[in-house]
Amino acid sequence: MPKPFPPCPFQKLSPSQLKRDDRFFMQLAYNQALEAWHLGEVPIGAVIVHEGTVIASAHNRVEASKDPTAHAEILAITQAAHALGDWRLNGTRLYVTKEPCPMCSGATVMSRIDTVIYGVKDPKMGCMGGAYPVQELPQLNHKVKTLPGIFEEECHELLQTFFALKRAN
Amino acid sequence: MPKPFPPCPFQKLSPSQLKRDDRFFMQLAYNQALEAWHLGEVPIGAVIVHEGTVIASAHNRVEASKDPTAHAEILAITQAAHALGDWRLNGTRLYVTKEPCPMCSGATVMSRIDTVIYGVKDPKMGCMGGAYPVQELPQLNHKVKTLPGIFEEECHELLQTFFALKRAN
Repeated sequence: MPKPFPPCPFQKLSPSQLKRDDRFFMQLAYNQALEAWHLGEVPIGAVIVHEGTVIASAHNRVEASKDPTAHAEILAITQAAHALGDWRLNGTRLYVTKEPCPMCSGATVMSRIDTVIYGVKDPKMGCMGGAYPVQELPQLNHKVKTLPGIFEEECHELLQTFFALKRAN
Repeated sequence: MPKPFPPCPFQKLSPSQLKRDDRFFMQLAYNQALEAWHLGEVPIGAVIVHEGTVIASAHNRVEASKDPTAHAEILAITQAAHALGDWRLNGTRLYVTKEPCPMCSGATVMSRIDTVIYGVKDPKMGCMGGAYPVQELPQLNHKVKTLPGIFEEECHELLQTFFALKRAN
């Protein structure tokens, strides 16, 4: 297998299990993003939590699987649905390092996720507040709550560095 | 396997191969929607066409696969990407019996589909003009064209009948 390009200068995190708060779960999503980088993918990662337990962990795999739907969030949502045995993910929290794109923002609504917690805002493509708030469409049956800016600086630096190194080469 | 409920009162179509126009391909999507009904799913179907050839056909499978991402369009997009060996679906046309939901509308943007042709508008959840036009977000790299209202009456009757029969029981 070819070496990932550019090589990843960041290290995986080992957040303390003593405080399983939003920052803790976002660090798990961040570790997933590093996995994506190691595979040469845009480094975005996601985890889904149900009653304090991680039921899904995934990262972007668009290039590896040659599938435009293989975003971290979509893969995590499918995993979570299998874990719960139901396509309705009520009561779950999705942690993702970057604000979801139009597709993934819509997926959080359709899958009835309770809350989407994201790291860095995406004013260009983000559809949970950055470019547009799809969760605020007036006639939706299900309202997704959003919580932006958790572990934001680190998530931002990760993406910024990835694209800077890509451009530099 | 339990019988589909309610039973489907519509017949599959056999459109003439002599005129492979938008109406022709939408009838193939309609046949996919009937397949969904036979499985007890909300009857929505999709096909993707590249250079006049159908490269993907799929229908809604949310209930059967217990996966909220298993909409006709998402499944068809994954199939089409595999068929082309590339996640970028430039030059393809997606035919779908109902206006795409927030997730699927976003997926058409992210997968760089050329044109989305849909049957019936969805003013509540449709994100290609009905409730919101996601393809018109100002900063998108890729602009998806839309063509609503093809084979609209039949697609509308199909969905309307499905929900009426569901409610009646």
